[in-house]
Amino acid sequence: MGMFACIVAGAQNQKPRARDLGIPFDGTPGTNNAITDVKGVEVGYKTIISGSGKLVVGKGPVRTGVTAIFPRGKGSLDRVFAAWFTLNGNGEMTGTTWVDESGGLGSPILITNTHSVGVVRDAVIEWYAKRMKPGEYDGDVSLPVVAETWDGFLNDINGFHVTKEDAFAALEAATSGPVMEGNVGGGTGMICHGFKGGTGTSSRKIVIDQANYTVGALVQANYGKRDLLTIAGVPVGKEIMDLQRIEGKPGEDDGSIIVVVATDAPLLPHQLERVVKRVALGLGVVGGRGGNSSGDIFIAFSTANPEVTKNKGIARIDMLPNDVISPIFEATASATEEAIVNALVAAETMEGINGNKVFAIPHVRLLAVLKKYGRITR
Amino acid sequence: MGMFACIVAGAQNQKPRARDLGIPFDGTPGTNNAITDVKGVEVGYKTIISGSGKLVVGKGPVRTGVTAIFPRGKGSLDRVFAAWFTLNGNGEMTGTTWVDESGGLGSPILITNTHSVGVVRDAVIEWYAKRMKPGEYDGDVSLPVVAETWDGFLNDINGFHVTKEDAFAALEAATSGPVMEGNVGGGTGMICHGFKGGTGTSSRKIVIDQANYTVGALVQANYGKRDLLTIAGVPVGKEIMDLQRIEGKPGEDDGSIIVVVATDAPLLPHQLERVVKRVALGLGVVGGRGGNSSGDIFIAFSTANPEVTKNKGIARIDMLPNDVISPIFEATASATEEAIVNALVAAETMEGINGNKVFAIPHVRLLAVLKKYGRITR
Amino acid sequence: MGMFACIVAGAQNQKPRARDLGIPFDGTPGTNNAITDVKGVEVGYKTIISGSGKLVVGKGPVRTGVTAIFPRGKGSLDRVFAAWFTLNGNGEMTGTTWVDESGGLGSPILITNTHSVGVVRDAVIEWYAKRMKPGEYDGDVSLPVVAETWDGFLNDINGFHVTKEDAFAALEAATSGPVMEGNVGGGTGMICHGFKGGTGTSSRKIVIDQANYTVGALVQANYGKRDLLTIAGVPVGKEIMDLQRIEGKPGEDDGSIIVVVATDAPLLPHQLERVVKRVALGLGVVGGRGGNSSGDIFIAFSTANPEVTKNKGIARIDMLPNDVISPIFEATASATEEAIVNALVAAETMEGINGNKVFAIPHVRLLAVLKKYGRITR
Amino acid sequence: MGMFACIVAGAQNQKPRARDLGIPFDGTPGTNNAITDVKGVEVGYKTIISGSGKLVVGKGPVRTGVTAIFPRGKGSLDRVFAAWFTLNGNGEMTGTTWVDESGGLGSPILITNTHSVGVVRDAVIEWYAKRMKPGEYDGDVSLPVVAETWDGFLNDINGFHVTKEDAFAALEAATSGPVMEGNVGGGTGMICHGFKGGTGTSSRKIVIDQANYTVGALVQANYGKRDLLTIAGVPVGKEIMDLQRIEGKPGEDDGSIIVVVATDAPLLPHQLERVVKRVALGLGVVGGRGGNSSGDIFIAFSTANPEVTKNKGIARIDMLPNDVISPIFEATASATEEAIVNALVAAETMEGINGNKVFAIPHVRLLAVLKKYGRITR
Repeated sequence: MGMFACIVAGAQNQKPRARDLGIPFDGTPGTNNAITDVKGVEVGYKTIISGSGKLVVGKGPVRTGVTAIFPRGKGSLDRVFAAWFTLNGNGEMTGTTWVDESGGLGSPILITNTHSVGVVRDAVIEWYAKRMKPGEYDGDVSLPVVAETWDGFLNDINGFHVTKEDAFAALEAATSGPVMEGNVGGGTGMICHGFKGGTGTSSRKIVIDQANYTVGALVQANYGKRDLLTIAGVPVGKEIMDLQRIEGKPGEDDGSIIVVVATDAPLLPHQLERVVKRVALGLGVVGGRGGNSSGDIFIAFSTANPEVTKNKGIARIDMLPNDVISPIFEATASATEEAIVNALVAAETMEGINGNKVFAIPHVRLLAVLKKYGRITR
Repeated sequence: MGMFACIVAGAQNQKPRARDLGIPFDGTPGTNNAITDVKGVEVGYKTIISGSGKLVVGKGPVRTGVTAIFPRGKGSLDRVFAAWFTLNGNGEMTGTTWVDESGGLGSPILITNTHSVGVVRDAVIEWYAKRMKPGEYDGDVSLPVVAETWDGFLNDINGFHVTKEDAFAALEAATSGPVMEGNVGGGTGMICHGFKGGTGTSSRKIVIDQANYTVGALVQANYGKRDLLTIAGVPVGKEIMDLQRIEGKPGEDDGSIIVVVATDAPLLPHQLERVVKRVALGLGVVGGRGGNSSGDIFIAFSTANPEVTKNKGIARIDMLPNDVISPIFEATASATEEAIVNALVAAETMEGINGNKVFAIPHVRLLAVLKKYGRITR
Repeated sequence: MGMFACIVAGAQNQKPRARDLGIPFDGTPGTNNAITDVKGVEVGYKTIISGSGKLVVGKGPVRTGVTAIFPRGKGSLDRVFAAWFTLNGNGEMTGTTWVDESGGLGSPILITNTHSVGVVRDAVIEWYAKRMKPGEYDGDVSLPVVAETWDGFLNDINGFHVTKEDAFAALEAATSGPVMEGNVGGGTGMICHGFKGGTGTSSRKIVIDQANYTVGALVQANYGKRDLLTIAGVPVGKEIMDLQRIEGKPGEDDGSIIVVVATDAPLLPHQLERVVKRVALGLGVVGGRGGNSSGDIFIAFSTANPEVTKNKGIARIDMLPNDVISPIFEATASATEEAIVNALVAAETMEGINGNKVFAIPHVRLLAVLKKYGRITR
Repeated sequence: MGMFACIVAGAQNQKPRARDLGIPFDGTPGTNNAITDVKGVEVGYKTIISGSGKLVVGKGPVRTGVTAIFPRGKGSLDRVFAAWFTLNGNGEMTGTTWVDESGGLGSPILITNTHSVGVVRDAVIEWYAKRMKPGEYDGDVSLPVVAETWDGFLNDINGFHVTKEDAFAALEAATSGPVMEGNVGGGTGMICHGFKGGTGTSSRKIVIDQANYTVGALVQANYGKRDLLTIAGVPVGKEIMDLQRIEGKPGEDDGSIIVVVATDAPLLPHQLERVVKRVALGLGVVGGRGGNSSGDIFIAFSTANPEVTKNKGIARIDMLPNDVISPIFEATASATEEAIVNALVAAETMEGINGNKVFAIPHVRLLAVLKKYGRITR
């Protein structure tokens, strides 16, 4: 078990990402055009791919995985301010009640398939419990944040193949630097606007009052109707209506999308609530409408303010004034948009249970459509 | 005081609306492509335009007004289910606490300028108080829903020119049928993506399980940065960066947008909460990002279920299942998008206080840009 | 017009407050046992009482008023962090959408009767507009916070007797120090658990990590069923079921309560959200159940953090860690409880329109009941 | 492993419940004074007690369990309308995002210890997956509602002793009729106001417009400071300050309370939101203040309206008008209050890991205090 995909964001000699194809986006990305451009953020995957052919529940085939994102690196339990938002709540993100109440997050964010949220959640607690001294108790790590999207079209989801060891592996694999995209981690078995979806990432560099900030997004994209797919304003979905996962059936908006936004701008929880809402705008421009069966759940955190984690005395906090916050809103929408398109561009055609097959968006045809609508000149 | 603009939606021999120009939108509009396509909905305006030249606070010039929307016609106090959502809350919509609590609305929705919300609010109570018998008390009409956008760039907003009689006039003017657009009612002095904005409307017909429903939207559009303006996926704002309200200054996302959504689909309050969130998606595709100084506040209601208004016994309610609701989400986003573009297309260049001038979007140049990007063929 | 009541909190030679009667409460109050014990907070009233006998709409009798509360004193426009909560939303508090979005408040809080919210709201804008230079615009003062409770049983509420000058008068009357209670300001015509209600206040001093903080509450109490009235845990309402406002009719839970909480503890908006929820607990122990027709709306602010008001650069903010916040929760509940009882104890029997009469809770009988249940020993 | 406690609500020859002791509460309970008095509701437990003495992580001692509550009985997957509320969110209740979005619930509610939420959550999915035909997919059962309170003072919580089989056992044990209280199910290792806490239940019969309704509550009580404990308005906690779990240390408000409310009244989701908020009022009168480390999370559902579950056509729904809803608010607060006191009265002294010991509230002393304050006459 375990064939790892290897599309590394920003790495050389890889298949191209959306910008490499010439697709235009607003704003300027960071070094790796990845969520890890926000200093401290680390991403790790465990990708689980095995078997093929007919589904035997409990045996496979398996197309799933786990994604782990540490706000301050895997060595740190320090809190960050955070906030979450749901465009359509047909999904799960555990731990959000405490995020709301406390204004933050003291544990990593994990993403997996719908039926494995529980095992991953308890695994996060166990991973930390083993690292803590006996009797030590940290409320934050007892309420882990674990989200999901559904991969049952390709994966033996009722076989419950994700184990606590898989969650440990994703946590331990977390690193900074380039980030793999496509059929990796929790995104392994995903479908997006009827094409093969998965994991994507992007970032934006912005300047506010002479200070430099970065906003990064990572998506696990599993949502959307084909005919609504819009890239760079172009109705790509309407132009490519074949290559459906079920022939002759354009499909419903029946998936989900999890988006994680990171920034180093010093934002308070109520400001991060504002930021995380703008994810919906980025999703909207790609064609997301939050269909009834979609779990479109987003979380944002700020790595500024190390003193968030203080538990006595007075914490000294920096706050960016609301009056100058709008560029962060725009960067959030834009990074989300690009991360989704990156997920689509990176994902590769996959066959799963019972021969179910989901096609990658064909780059050549995508570019032809964009050219037809005057959005690329090559 | 009071020169009325006369752009009537759907009426003959008028200047064209967005669709008339050939701008493509998803979905099928109703008879008038207006919120009044939802049976029972009535819209009335009082437009207040007087004076020109230098501002003398309290004297003018005046460029403002009042818009009134009755869910069930101005003869009815019957309740409707309703819900509201805010993308960015730098604005006011009174009455929303009771909308949340009660799940509905028992009074009309009014929109005016920021500094006149109070006078309009109390005027609604007085208008009803005069129609009720002595001692009669109806809680709903004591908590009116009044929203606003800021028109102080063109209007003597600190002159407080809106009177209770103006609110009465808007209420009494309400009718079904075609709806005026552009520089009318509360939308008189508005600015949208740096062009002259104002009032716009649109509707969608949808079929769910063989049943026909209508979704209508009315916007008071006063928001947005020029460079983000996107029409039919085309970066129109980036292509037309002149004609700014202050020369050489592209402007901030410093306005607001109020959106009212009506439907005859039998939706419960929690479902209307879902619907009203999708307004943000329609706004996003036109280029709204909910800038910090923007009051992007939306309200949706359903005219189904006459028994909502019962106050004893058991009310018999129809409910559309969640499983079939997605087309309403799409229609809401799409009708919002078109209503905004309609407001831009209908609005005419206006000069206000101190010679401040805001330009209408030039139709010829707009069409040229859309043609450049392959979105219109004429 | 205008007979002012004169129950000054903490002043000498006044009729006793709840503690003076020996009623036990948890915690230690500040100097004046008033919201003004939080440094900077100023309270002003305009009380409007005129006429008697039969109601002639527009003529009276009038039993109403306006209350104004400045978080940082009436000379300051500086923002404070703030948050609000509603237990039951059959009421109005304008400006809350911007409180939510911005995390704060840049204007005073006013309370009046239900039908006068509008005139008071616009008056706040006008009061500031006259103090600002021409062209100057401050978004905060364009979105005032004005709340209400209904006084139509005693007051000619449809006569709209509150004027903008009354609002100006309340604003200008605001001072620190002892605070009048009972039939004053917006609380003039109020009814609480079937007894005469009105305005009440209280405060708590607390120590957290050797630092001293104050929490203060001010209520406009107009809610509650008689049989639920509980003072110091004793079922006072069940023991005094006579003295109803309508003979032989125990009345419904048909009023409202507005509560304003102030603290100098350095709390962020998300923490103030936590604090303001605890108002409901204090209300609950007195017997509030948030009846359907009640507008139980609460707002809390922190006077710490002068840099909240910065609009560029980085604001330096102090934050009390969540881990030590619980004493503030307890103080909030307890100060709310005592402020309500203070309102009841201070209010005096009032006759209003059509001879409608509401009785003050009789101190001697109240004390007899408390003695019966072993809560006072005198 | 597995010694079952046997305090059955309403059963004969058991140790007395709160009412049996003469403690006064408002309102009239149903047949069993239990949540199961709402027709269709079934409750099942798995109680896990084993070992004693020194903690060896993974070996025990174990004092924990699982509670399962089916809204429509364990044979039904039909949805109910539902809503949830959190007074203080230092806790977990999975599935609530879908409850909010969909307005309901299509799966049972489970309660366990903090570190076992995951295993129980996935077990619910597996339990249903085994009962569904291959390929059948029901979104509701993929998003189970599982809540928790922390039992690490008595239980080897980091030993992760709850298994999926334990969750299955709780589900399968669910029945209508009398309900066990005290040290059972998820409530096995709980502490409430420093006394032994656990599971408690209660119900209220109410009449609205000649129709009979029932409101039931079930609590897993693990919260509260001793000095705040108030029973029937009497400061019981201040009167019994010994019998602390750690000698000489009165303890913090560091636990949590989960409350489940059921009713057969035909309430819509937005009305259940109103109802579930009132749980906080019932908790408040017993002395809950929502301390920082407490997860005070509540969920309410209505068993009326079988057509909630329809997924096409139009569902026919009954709705109780808001105007007559207040008795349900009062019943909710009152049933919550009594359920907590029932949990305290039923729980028995327990010794857990490392000899940690938590004392049951002594009935004789409790009654003596209530007598001192004139609340019982015996």
